[in-house]
Amino acid sequence: MRKYGYMKPMEGVLFVDEFQFIDSIKQTSYNQASIIKGIGDDAAVFRSTNSDIVTAVDTFVEGIHFSEQTMEPFHIGYRALAANISDMAAMGAIPKFYLVSIVIPKQATKQVLEQIYDGMKTIANEYKMDLIGGDTVSGNQLTISVTIIGQVPFGKARYRSEAKHKDIVFVTGTLGDSQAGLHILRNELHCKGNEEFIQRHRMPSPRVDFSKSLWSIERIALNDISDGIANELREIANASRVSITIDDDKIPTSSNFEQFSLTKQYEWKYFGGEDFELVGTVSAKDWDKVQEIALKSNVRITKIGRVSFNKDMIGQVFLKKGHCILPLEKRGYIHKVGE
Amino acid sequence: MRKYGYMKPMEGVLFVDEFQFIDSIKQTSYNQASIIKGIGDDAAVFRSTNSDIVTAVDTFVEGIHFSEQTMEPFHIGYRALAANISDMAAMGAIPKFYLVSIVIPKQATKQVLEQIYDGMKTIANEYKMDLIGGDTVSGNQLTISVTIIGQVPFGKARYRSEAKHKDIVFVTGTLGDSQAGLHILRNELHCKGNEEFIQRHRMPSPRVDFSKSLWSIERIALNDISDGIANELREIANASRVSITIDDDKIPTSSNFEQFSLTKQYEWKYFGGEDFELVGTVSAKDWDKVQEIALKSNVRITKIGRVSFNKDMIGQVFLKKGHCILPLEKRGYIHKVGE
Repeated sequence: MRKYGYMKPMEGVLFVDEFQFIDSIKQTSYNQASIIKGIGDDAAVFRSTNSDIVTAVDTFVEGIHFSEQTMEPFHIGYRALAANISDMAAMGAIPKFYLVSIVIPKQATKQVLEQIYDGMKTIANEYKMDLIGGDTVSGNQLTISVTIIGQVPFGKARYRSEAKHKDIVFVTGTLGDSQAGLHILRNELHCKGNEEFIQRHRMPSPRVDFSKSLWSIERIALNDISDGIANELREIANASRVSITIDDDKIPTSSNFEQFSLTKQYEWKYFGGEDFELVGTVSAKDWDKVQEIALKSNVRITKIGRVSFNKDMIGQVFLKKGHCILPLEKRGYIHKVGE
Repeated sequence: MRKYGYMKPMEGVLFVDEFQFIDSIKQTSYNQASIIKGIGDDAAVFRSTNSDIVTAVDTFVEGIHFSEQTMEPFHIGYRALAANISDMAAMGAIPKFYLVSIVIPKQATKQVLEQIYDGMKTIANEYKMDLIGGDTVSGNQLTISVTIIGQVPFGKARYRSEAKHKDIVFVTGTLGDSQAGLHILRNELHCKGNEEFIQRHRMPSPRVDFSKSLWSIERIALNDISDGIANELREIANASRVSITIDDDKIPTSSNFEQFSLTKQYEWKYFGGEDFELVGTVSAKDWDKVQEIALKSNVRITKIGRVSFNKDMIGQVFLKKGHCILPLEKRGYIHKVGE
């Protein structure tokens, strides 16, 4: 079937010259030596002889996952690929290739599309990734679907199901910043650390290097924070058949986070999505090593809780707040930007 | 990021129970031994040590690529995956895995979604493929984006750029049937061979087995017919820097094709898409072998023309009609079902 190189005649005809547009997004050279055929045939071809292959797809719909009110087209592209790269980090994999399928509404201009692709290309280059395929079709609603392909040494992929009784629970970076940034953008606020919060929302930094450095650790459970830590911990607890308790005092937040109301802080820390930090669990004996790796990778890491096994509490997540231990509610981040 | 297993709270809430739906599409066992982790983590993991990996993505939008007027939801799913499988056949690859990203409008019912996935599952099982990932989001317009991953022995992928001067041009099966089927459905006609035409439109048969059997041929250029043979030949001619001449008398059509007007026959044969047959070129010395393989694979094959090199005609496709040779117009199949 026709892919980039020849768009279907009916499709996308309204945004200037199709061929010029395709040329503008097509890579002229590839970062990955394992690529055999990039864009320009029915499919892309690459070789992988020493690694397992890791793949996922994520779709972003205008009005649900992004809005032009809070994001430039460049950021829409940047963040769409960042979210996928974060999935690779959560698997312990190195992102290598991506394919982009885009549904283009009639009103979209060539400039907007080029900026979206430019955003993707910018973060792709940071990670030496290659765009190897895609599809461009017309429709009512701008929709970007990104398939990502990564590699990990044989047997080194990280799963949510690896948490064990007495493991230490850790998280990278600070939580809630992306939601603070979104809040600032939506309400056109002027807060302390405005730029930092906005940057964290628009151009998140997936933890690929740190995750790669963890390959030397024998066992680790990993998840990335796309829908709030409460949800991600529950995924680990369910997959590993354990329960997890975290300490409210320990949750790392950035220095300007306290200016927001306590309700907002609580909401954003636990249920705010899209920080794209990593949360994981590791045995106490390996904790020092994980801390060393974090230091070397220049990543802040914080011990926030413990894993435990009790057959009546499988899949549950608890929050220690002062002298109380409460169940952390079961709800995730609501992807709805148009509020 | 969350994938199948936990849909985002805002998304898909309107079609009954999300978890039940996910359970209904999730595979309980996998056909491919190389799968390490299927659905249920941030990404899927598989191993490929002896093959090159081939991947592509195709997106299908309601009202553009399919319509409920002419397709049951089952066929929408079946055909979406068939189109992707056909891309693998065009590359000489064996389809192995697929990921599905679906944008679900509010009005979609659980039944419709299940039938779409059922259609995909049906053809996936025919080819022993596994569903290894996906994403489910809400939006205005039903959109199905399928990423396919296949494998081919090292260096055996087939490209459009392999045609050479004096090659024989061949095509599998018969052309124009899918468009005849669409025409019958749109106009609620009763024609000879109704069922066959409709079947060819709704449930095409990608030529994977035949393509696999061609591995023994050293050089071959291949393309699948998704947008009309005129376009696919032009892609080969451009990629290989040659020109191609085909003979109007030789184009294979099915026995009941003649009942349609000459204008329609011409349109559907050359510019009608979605027959998902293969068109290719091969040296004259290998032609007998290709015919033998076709016979063994139970695939009709027809020699329809020749490749030639003339530096002033690179990328051009000609049609021999009686005593005349005419340039075959440069236009492809228009994916627009709602006419």
